[in-house]
Amino acid sequence: MGRIGQSYRVTKVTFDGGPDGRWTTDTRGDTVTVEEPLELRVNGTTITTTMRTPGNDVELVHGFLHGEGHITSASQVAEARYCAGATGPNGENTYNLIETDLAVGVTPPGLEAIRLTTTSSACGVCGSTSIDEVMGRTHHPIEPVTLDPRMIVGLPEKLRAEQKQFRRTGGIHAAGAFTLSGEPVVIREDVGRHNAADKVIGHLLMNDLLPAKDLILVMSSRASYELVQKAIMAGFPALVAVSAPSSLAVDLAREAGLSLVGFTRDDRFNLYSGQLAEA
Amino acid sequence: MGRIGQSYRVTKVTFDGGPDGRWTTDTRGDTVTVEEPLELRVNGTTITTTMRTPGNDVELVHGFLHGEGHITSASQVAEARYCAGATGPNGENTYNLIETDLAVGVTPPGLEAIRLTTTSSACGVCGSTSIDEVMGRTHHPIEPVTLDPRMIVGLPEKLRAEQKQFRRTGGIHAAGAFTLSGEPVVIREDVGRHNAADKVIGHLLMNDLLPAKDLILVMSSRASYELVQKAIMAGFPALVAVSAPSSLAVDLAREAGLSLVGFTRDDRFNLYSGQLAEA
Repeated sequence: MGRIGQSYRVTKVTFDGGPDGRWTTDTRGDTVTVEEPLELRVNGTTITTTMRTPGNDVELVHGFLHGEGHITSASQVAEARYCAGATGPNGENTYNLIETDLAVGVTPPGLEAIRLTTTSSACGVCGSTSIDEVMGRTHHPIEPVTLDPRMIVGLPEKLRAEQKQFRRTGGIHAAGAFTLSGEPVVIREDVGRHNAADKVIGHLLMNDLLPAKDLILVMSSRASYELVQKAIMAGFPALVAVSAPSSLAVDLAREAGLSLVGFTRDDRFNLYSGQLAEA
Repeated sequence: MGRIGQSYRVTKVTFDGGPDGRWTTDTRGDTVTVEEPLELRVNGTTITTTMRTPGNDVELVHGFLHGEGHITSASQVAEARYCAGATGPNGENTYNLIETDLAVGVTPPGLEAIRLTTTSSACGVCGSTSIDEVMGRTHHPIEPVTLDPRMIVGLPEKLRAEQKQFRRTGGIHAAGAFTLSGEPVVIREDVGRHNAADKVIGHLLMNDLLPAKDLILVMSSRASYELVQKAIMAGFPALVAVSAPSSLAVDLAREAGLSLVGFTRDDRFNLYSGQLAEA
C-alpha cells in the first residue's frame, strides 16, 4: 500500500559513438515501478484480480465497481478493507486483497461479472504467488543465453522498420521474434501489446518453432508481468523491451532465468536479468 | 480481418509560438488504428473477448491458448475458423468471432479459465455491439462542453508536474481529473492506465463529485475503447490523451457526445470528437 517504487540492481549499458562503438557498463540500484496483484472480493466472492501499482486501492475498487456499473454512489459500499488474513511468505499482510461489503439492498455483481483468473488463491495473492503459478505452468525450462550488446541496440529500429501501421497512425504496438544474431523471424502489430505478443507466439506455434529457445521476443512497449509470463511460456530465453519493466516483471524474469532488457535505445539499454557477452 | 487502419475526419490544432500564441485548425482525414472485439469460443464455449486490431486472428488465438497453458502444440487445435453466423448490422461477416475445436483427447479449458465479459453476445460481437452496450449502461448522459485550445495544450505538463513516480522510474501511467479551466482536482499513478483512471474515478465517487460533468479526464497514455467507456460511465464531458486513440474509442466518443482529444503536446493536438472555443 503506497509502495510504488522498488530498487533493483540494474546494469546500465551505454555506447560511445553509436551501435558500432564500444560500450561501458555501470551496475547500480535503480527504481522500478511496483506491480502487484490486487484481488477484489465483493460480499465474499472474488470478482477480479488486477495487476496494479499499490496505493489508493480503496479508490481503485470504488472506481472499478462504478465503471462496471455495479454501484452509482459511494454510499452503496458499506465497507472496503484489506483482508486481515492475506499474508505473504513471511507472515506480513500483503495488502493485496480487498474485501468489500455492499450496503443492504444493493445487488451484488452476478456471475457474468466475475473475471476469473488462475492467479486467484485462497486468502489473497501476492507477487510470489503469481510467480509460483507461472513457474508451475512452464512447459519449457529456459536455457540461459549470453546476449551481444551490439545486437540488442539494433533491435528497436529493426522492429520499427517492419512496423508499417505505426508510421500511419502512431498508435499501435509491435512484437517480434528475432534470432540471437538479431534477424527478424516474425513481426506482428496490435493496439494491445499482449495481443501482438500472442500473434507472434501463435505464429511460431503454428510453424512448429516452439519452444523459442534460440529466439528473442522484442516488444515496442513496456515489459509487464504478463509479457514476461508469455515469453517464459513460449520458451524465449530473452525479452527486450523499448520501455520500462515493472517490479514483478523483473522478479519473474530472474526466477525463470529469462534475460530481461528495458529502455532499449540505439545507444543504450538497461539489463535487469541475465548475462552479456564480453566487450 | 486485416483492416488495421481506418480514416476519420480529425481537426488538427497547431499553435504558433507555444501555448500563449494563436492557433490554426486544419480538418482532414487521418488514419486511426482499428480496435475491435474478438470473441474466442473453444469447443462451443466462449472463453474470452479481447479488444484487438484485426489481422492474424488465428495466430492470436493459438498464442492465447498456448500462453494460458491450454495447448502445447498446433496439432492440439483441430480447427480454428471465423463464425459464419457472426454478422454485423448490415449482414456482413464481422470476422470478430473465432470458433476453435480442439483435437480429440485434448482437455478443453475448465470453468476457471473463462473470462466472462458483459460484451459477449449470442453470435459474435462487433464495435457497434460494444458501443450499444456502454450506451445502455451509462448513468449520466453527457452534456457537451466547448474546450479552450489554450487550456488543452497545458494539461500534459500539469499532469507530469504532479507525477512524482514517473520521474523516478519512467514507467508509470497517470490519470487526472481537471476543471474546464485546467486546474487539477486529483491525479493518480499506476502501472496500468485503466487502474489509474479507476483510482481517479473512485476518488471522485468517494468525495461525491460524480457525475464529473464539469471535469476533464486527462490520461498520460493512449485512448482505448476501455478508457472512453470509463470516462462516459463517470460522466466526464471530455477525455484528453497524450497519445493516440483507437477507432472504437473515436466511435464511442462520437456516439456519446464525449469530446476526445489525442496526441496532446504543448503546441498541438488532434480533436477527434467535440467542439472548440473560437480563436
